[in-house]
Order: sequence, then C-alpha cells, then structure tokens
Amino acid sequence: MPLVGFGLWKVPNDTCADVVYNAIKMGYRLFDGACDYGNEKEAGEGVRRAIADGLVKREDLFITSKLWNTFHAHDHVKQLAKKQLQDWGLDYFDLFLVHFPIAIQYVSPDHRYPPTWWDDNGKLLPPVNVPMQETWGAMEELVDEGLVHNIGVSNVCGGLLLDMFRYARIRPQVLQVELHPYNSQEALIRVAQLHGVVVTGYSQFGPMGYVEIGADKNTGLLFDNPVIKGIALAHGKTPAQVLLRWLTQRNITVMPKATRDDLLEENLKSTDFALTVRDFKQIATLNMNRRFNDPADLDQHFSIFA
Amino acid sequence: MPLVGFGLWKVPNDTCADVVYNAIKMGYRLFDGACDYGNEKEAGEGVRRAIADGLVKREDLFITSKLWNTFHAHDHVKQLAKKQLQDWGLDYFDLFLVHFPIAIQYVSPDHRYPPTWWDDNGKLLPPVNVPMQETWGAMEELVDEGLVHNIGVSNVCGGLLLDMFRYARIRPQVLQVELHPYNSQEALIRVAQLHGVVVTGYSQFGPMGYVEIGADKNTGLLFDNPVIKGIALAHGKTPAQVLLRWLTQRNITVMPKATRDDLLEENLKSTDFALTVRDFKQIATLNMNRRFNDPADLDQHFSIFA
Repeated sequence: MPLVGFGLWKVPNDTCADVVYNAIKMGYRLFDGACDYGNEKEAGEGVRRAIADGLVKREDLFITSKLWNTFHAHDHVKQLAKKQLQDWGLDYFDLFLVHFPIAIQYVSPDHRYPPTWWDDNGKLLPPVNVPMQETWGAMEELVDEGLVHNIGVSNVCGGLLLDMFRYARIRPQVLQVELHPYNSQEALIRVAQLHGVVVTGYSQFGPMGYVEIGADKNTGLLFDNPVIKGIALAHGKTPAQVLLRWLTQRNITVMPKATRDDLLEENLKSTDFALTVRDFKQIATLNMNRRFNDPADLDQHFSIFA
Repeated sequence: MPLVGFGLWKVPNDTCADVVYNAIKMGYRLFDGACDYGNEKEAGEGVRRAIADGLVKREDLFITSKLWNTFHAHDHVKQLAKKQLQDWGLDYFDLFLVHFPIAIQYVSPDHRYPPTWWDDNGKLLPPVNVPMQETWGAMEELVDEGLVHNIGVSNVCGGLLLDMFRYARIRPQVLQVELHPYNSQEALIRVAQLHGVVVTGYSQFGPMGYVEIGADKNTGLLFDNPVIKGIALAHGKTPAQVLLRWLTQRNITVMPKATRDDLLEENLKSTDFALTVRDFKQIATLNMNRRFNDPADLDQHFSIFA
C-alpha cells in the first residue's frame, strides 16, 4: 500500500476520468474512492484508459472503495461491492472499507445512486438494526470470494475497533480516520498500530477541504498556521508537505486531492524529508479535537465519536 | 432509580457492613457495587442487617452490581451473577452492568476472587475473543430469569453504544461513566440521553478518589478549584455539593462515597438547589478530557476510550 495516494472525494464527475488519468501519469498508484463520492464510473474510466495506454498495469495500482451506510445488511454488502466493481470496471478492489459504523435504511441503486444520507424528501434516512458484526461477516466473505483483497473500517473509535477484533475472522487491516493537527487522535493511532492495523488519515489539510462545502467551522486554515508555516520554512518545504509528512513519517497513509500538476507533484514528493522531534512536539500543541466530518453534526443520534 | 446513591469502590471489608448499614440509616437507598470491589459479602451483610432491623425493605433499595472482565463469556455471566447475588444475600439486583467493554481470560472464583486484572504472577490477564454481543445476550437472559431487573454498561464509548443498540433485544438502560468537570464528556451524555439511556457518573469529585491509590495524575483537587469554590460560595453550598448537582441537575445519577455522617448527609442533600446557566458555562471551561480510570494506563492495547 503506497504511503501517498489520491483521494477522490469531491472530484467532479466531468473531470474525474482525466484527473485520475493524469494522476497516474504523475506517478500516483493509490486511489481512494467510495460509493458516496458518486464518481466511481468516471474514476474507473481514467484507470482503464491509463492501463490501455500502457501507463500502468492493474497490479501496479491500489484501488480503495467504501461500503455506504445504506448497504450494511449482509446481502446488500455483496450487491453493492459487485456494482461498484462494475462501475470501476475492475475485477477486485485492493481495499474495501466500511465507510461509517452507521447503518441506515436501504435505498435501491435503481431508485437513487449514490443513496446519500437523505430520503426523497430531504429527511435523514432512519437507522436500521444491522450490527457491525453482520456487516463485517459479509465483508469477510468478499475477501473469501476474491472480490476484495483487504478489508477495513473508517470512522471507527477505539472501543468499537477493539470489539471488532473479538469477532473478526479477518481483522480490519486498515483504519481510515480524520487526521490533521487540529484532530490528532494520538491514542487512536497508537491502539490501531499496536494491534497491527494500518492507519490512513483523511482530511490531512484539516479545514481546507471543508471550506467549499461551508463546513470548516470557522477554523483558520492549517496552511496559514504559523507553527506549520515555520516548520515548512525551516525544511524548505510547503505547509502541505509538512502536513502530509506529519502523518507518513509515522507510517500513516494519506490521500490528498489536487488537480494542478505542480500540486500533484508536491503532494506525492512529500516523503523525502524528516520532521524533527521538536517539530512533532510543536504540532502536538495545535490539537483541539476538532472534527470536520462528524455525523453528529447531521443528527446527534449519530454520535459515533462521543 | 434514586439520583444520589452510595458508591462501594474502595470501602474496606472490615467496615463495609457498618458503612452500608449507617448509610441506609442516613437515608441512602442506592448502592453501587461490583465484583471487582471485593466487598459484596460485607455490603450485603449491612443491607440484611438494615432490613432485619426494620430500617428499610428490600423493595425500597436499588442495588447495582457489575460483571467483571474475566466473566464475559456467555456461561460465565450467569455463573458470576448468581455468585454475586449469593454474596449479597439477595434474590435480584436492581441493575447489573458490564463493568468494562474488555474481555480477559477467565479465572475461576475458586482460584481467586475477585479475579482482578492480573494473573498469579502479576502479569495482565490476556484478552479473550468474547464480543460484547455474546456478553450482552447473556445479560439479557439474566433479565428474562428475573435475576436482575435492569441491565446496562459502564465505560462504553458512543460508537460501541450505538452498535449495541443494533443488536440488543433489551437496550442498555444505564450507562455509567467517569464524569467530573475535568472529563465532562458532553457529547457522550447527549447521545446516551437522546437514546433514552440513563447516565450515571462515577468519580464525580475527579482526582479526589484517586489520590490514595496514587493515580490522580498530579491533578489539583476539584474541591480546591477556584471556579468550583466560587460557585459553592455563591450558593451557600460545599464544593462537593456543587460537583454532584452539576450532574444531578441534568438527570445524571451519582454515587459518592463518604463515611462521616456529616458528609453522608451533605452528599445526599445536594439536590435542593439549582446551578445557573452561567455556573454551567463556567464549569464547562474546566474540561480537559482527563480520565483517572482508563485501562489504557494499564496496557495501551486496552484503549477503549481512543
């Protein structure tokens, strides 16, 4: 699994195929998609074109996708995974994650796809009683059948992760969570890595990715933070590279998004320097346990991080 | 369930029966015990004596006990609950809680009781693969058989609690967690109460209960905190009463421990005043997410709160 990948959240449908193709050309090998991102067909088109053009072989790529909340029931897991593979035009995913430990009412892909959090009237879809253990059993079967090579979870807290270990035939191999200096989650990283789970950080740039959707909670950008800027200056790197290295140096994989070639390259080439112990200490002072992606903001009944 | 009860943790065996008897005489009706506290026989002796002397009837009392980590397997749950009832000399518990969402190796009560966290050589007992769902199914059977009237959990985080709702035939009715102004857990309280779970706070006085076991993490006492002292002064109450009211005013039950009659009375009579919105706001500023009872301090593999 490459340390630096490319995240497909919010990549527009009309440019997605080209963006993916170009990212492959620039050297990206890991792509992080999801049913909920609504662009898996287009991402797959970019991948297929790159393979057809001889830029890369399938086995050189590491493709991640995620199970949406409406598909947690045993039979829906396989139904969705197969549909997603079809959308991508792939035989297997390298990694398939349970997107959230939240199970909500099933929506048929024929009715609306991606299903989102809401029903036809804009009301939140109601929760359904599908325990994580049922969903996980179905995820394990995807591995048995070769549809996915690895399975994991996203947005899961320590208490739930430890419970999963007690019933998992195949343990979660990856935990993907929101990680940036404003939400550093050191205890969670520690317990996951102690148990041999690969940690992946999303929203590595903190509020940045949430400005355009109005969900940055009035938090100043990390790119403008004097601590981050100071460290970047000292190393002759950009703030973005510091934010990525803060994770990758601890073997946490990242998947920033970019469209400009110079930024694509800047992100990819962010592992050729080392932050100092002092840098880590300074960055640690920035933590304020601020999450930008918390389902409790949609409905407090969904407080999976409480 | 009374709002103010009496907590039996660390009550010495040689005085426990008298302490319980006296607390009943002083008006206490809720007693919070546990296998792990190692004093259930003596607590039961105090209860039986109080009933024999006509101070109280069994149905006037609310007795809570807890399942220890070594007994999470289905058959051990009933074995332990029956033993604990026998120790207390009771036919039923009003409430039985899963003490921690941690399952460790079984220790026969004939070998060592209470089993503690450690084996005979002082090493931590290894984890065992008993998922919470198996333990919870056995807890539900205790209700079916009338051995306990209500069941709940302790030390469970939001993500795990929400997962339990998805398989529980009988939902957790009580969540008991560490609550004091240094660990205010507002999101957890909110999600539990939204779902109709009664929240109980333990260690309401914060570091106070941990000084004698050297686990206060060098945290100044809440009794000496100027914010708490100021509010106490303004209401003509003691700091202890303010700390209790901060919880009970939000329908969170508490169970402080005391031995002196004046303190027993002070704690019990802590619900006859109301903190102001301003008081709550001031106290909210004290939060630092500091836990004094965290199994991760024993072994980071047990990071149930991460």
